[in-house]
Amino acid sequence: MRWAVILAGGSGTRFWPLSTPNSPKQLLPLAGSRSTAREAVDRLEGLVSRDRILVVAGASLAPRLVEHLELARENVLVEPRAASTGPALVWATWEALHRDPDAEVLSLHADWSVADPAAFRQTADLALRTARGFDRLVTVGIVPSRPETGYGYIVPGARLDSLARDVARFSEKPDAATALDLMAAGALWNSGLFAWTAATLIREIELRTPEIAPHLEALRRGDVDGFFRAVTPVSIDVGLLERSGAVAVVSGAFAWDDIGTWEALTRVRPKDAGGNVLAGSAVAYESADCVVWAEDDVVVLNGVKELIVVQAHGRVLVMPRDRAPDMKRLLDALPPAVRDLPG
Amino acid sequence: MRWAVILAGGSGTRFWPLSTPNSPKQLLPLAGSRSTAREAVDRLEGLVSRDRILVVAGASLAPRLVEHLELARENVLVEPRAASTGPALVWATWEALHRDPDAEVLSLHADWSVADPAAFRQTADLALRTARGFDRLVTVGIVPSRPETGYGYIVPGARLDSLARDVARFSEKPDAATALDLMAAGALWNSGLFAWTAATLIREIELRTPEIAPHLEALRRGDVDGFFRAVTPVSIDVGLLERSGAVAVVSGAFAWDDIGTWEALTRVRPKDAGGNVLAGSAVAYESADCVVWAEDDVVVLNGVKELIVVQAHGRVLVMPRDRAPDMKRLLDALPPAVRDLPG
Repeated sequence: MRWAVILAGGSGTRFWPLSTPNSPKQLLPLAGSRSTAREAVDRLEGLVSRDRILVVAGASLAPRLVEHLELARENVLVEPRAASTGPALVWATWEALHRDPDAEVLSLHADWSVADPAAFRQTADLALRTARGFDRLVTVGIVPSRPETGYGYIVPGARLDSLARDVARFSEKPDAATALDLMAAGALWNSGLFAWTAATLIREIELRTPEIAPHLEALRRGDVDGFFRAVTPVSIDVGLLERSGAVAVVSGAFAWDDIGTWEALTRVRPKDAGGNVLAGSAVAYESADCVVWAEDDVVVLNGVKELIVVQAHGRVLVMPRDRAPDMKRLLDALPPAVRDLPG
Repeated sequence: MRWAVILAGGSGTRFWPLSTPNSPKQLLPLAGSRSTAREAVDRLEGLVSRDRILVVAGASLAPRLVEHLELARENVLVEPRAASTGPALVWATWEALHRDPDAEVLSLHADWSVADPAAFRQTADLALRTARGFDRLVTVGIVPSRPETGYGYIVPGARLDSLARDVARFSEKPDAATALDLMAAGALWNSGLFAWTAATLIREIELRTPEIAPHLEALRRGDVDGFFRAVTPVSIDVGLLERSGAVAVVSGAFAWDDIGTWEALTRVRPKDAGGNVLAGSAVAYESADCVVWAEDDVVVLNGVKELIVVQAHGRVLVMPRDRAPDMKRLLDALPPAVRDLPG
């Protein structure tokens, strides 16, 4: 049977001052009227039965996710500690396997925006069929719409069939020139949308991932705490996909964005005539190409360009758009009393 | 005896969204920790006895002023309607004359910033002595620190003595080139700080100001409402000072600002190392030459320049500094639900 694992960790400090530890970006309606986590679940409708959707999150967030996503409590898996995507996906896949020996798993994130859910489902279906048919770990590559330096790229290799290819190599967060070269050479964005059968994932982990493999025994004993204590944190990309020879790629023909920064709202939300994205109560007077998030106050722009203005949790942030990727530097510089948000 | 008349009318829409009809700019601590109205009263300490300070304001504001300025109720004069500075000053001067036949009057505004109160008092004392000694309407001219186009200028004429001169002419809100010429020729800013004996003002009004003179009879009868109903609104400058031959000027050697726009805060408040004026809880990170007023929320600037950011009354305004004089155009364009402030 088909299972989905939605990774819902991460605090989203790049969405300060809107996101908080208790209300991280995946629970915020950044891309529309529903949260990205809610959209992630709803997007699976017709592809994966609701009772086979597993969500992985930290202890503080899990109760909110159960309520917010209207999932059964046992389908929200509480990570004892954050240990990157490798251990999380292995554990969740193991859980699926435990409940269903024939499980095939789709892995996705709770903070994506996808413009075309039908195309998404079609691609996910193809990825799952490719995973079983060719016994591969299957990545979904998105045709790049810009030479983004914040993403990883997949370079396709030999053809498996008319729709799937093996992966020649990965290129993580290239510089701008390399990103252009990769685009020109037909490389695809690594979306983080993966498909595998549970059996194949466990086999490949045992072959390739010493950070995790020796500790599967703890999972076999049902000792999840012991597993997370013992593993070395490692991403599924670095810990497995970049090492395995059994990785394939299928192409995703849907607009996809991981909504990594405030800047991303310009790609996933409608704009006014001046190119401004206005979320909440906001007026842009003779202003252009701005992003406004007005949570409580009304924000009025008067004659400004290319600014990000965010009002939330008793804070107002004003910065040029090109500072959006660099929030950590700002947050490190802020006094804790300003940085730390209520709730 | 010496009297002071403080004009405290005006709504201060250029300080949107901080100033409101019930809390106009003269009641706000724009220049420091006390309101400009409070500073106007305190600045007279030692020059004019507190019980001879009259404040003119509209009905909605008068009760707040009595409390805020700790004045006797009968010293706050409630204008039946706003009719510009001419009728207001004539009425207040008439009131002083009624209580004190020998009254001499200093006229000032409630929204000024004055850097050196002692120099202010010295100049005001000189203006009052000149008014009586030469039987003149005396203006105080401020040595300009910039070719400001928003102010009126006084061109001094023949000498009366070593400190006072007659006025050759006035030049109201010149264009930039004319303002430079006026500065070069020794013209002074018309501050609105005036001095006269009550008897001289009434005599000159009767000679020069048909908008007001015929209606003094109503004041004589004690019919203030009738007076304000009958007069034609006119400023004291246009209605009298520009017409009278009995106008003198003394020079004010103190930094003076009428705090007309948010931009003015850069002249009257301390700046951080980056040239930012930060009022309230605000952080300017790698930002320069900005003005922030943070009333409730904490405002964080990240890598911006020459912006004005104001948070107050559930509104956030973001604009370049050079838009500060032009608030009316913005306010006319805002939907009433956004423009109209609570309280």
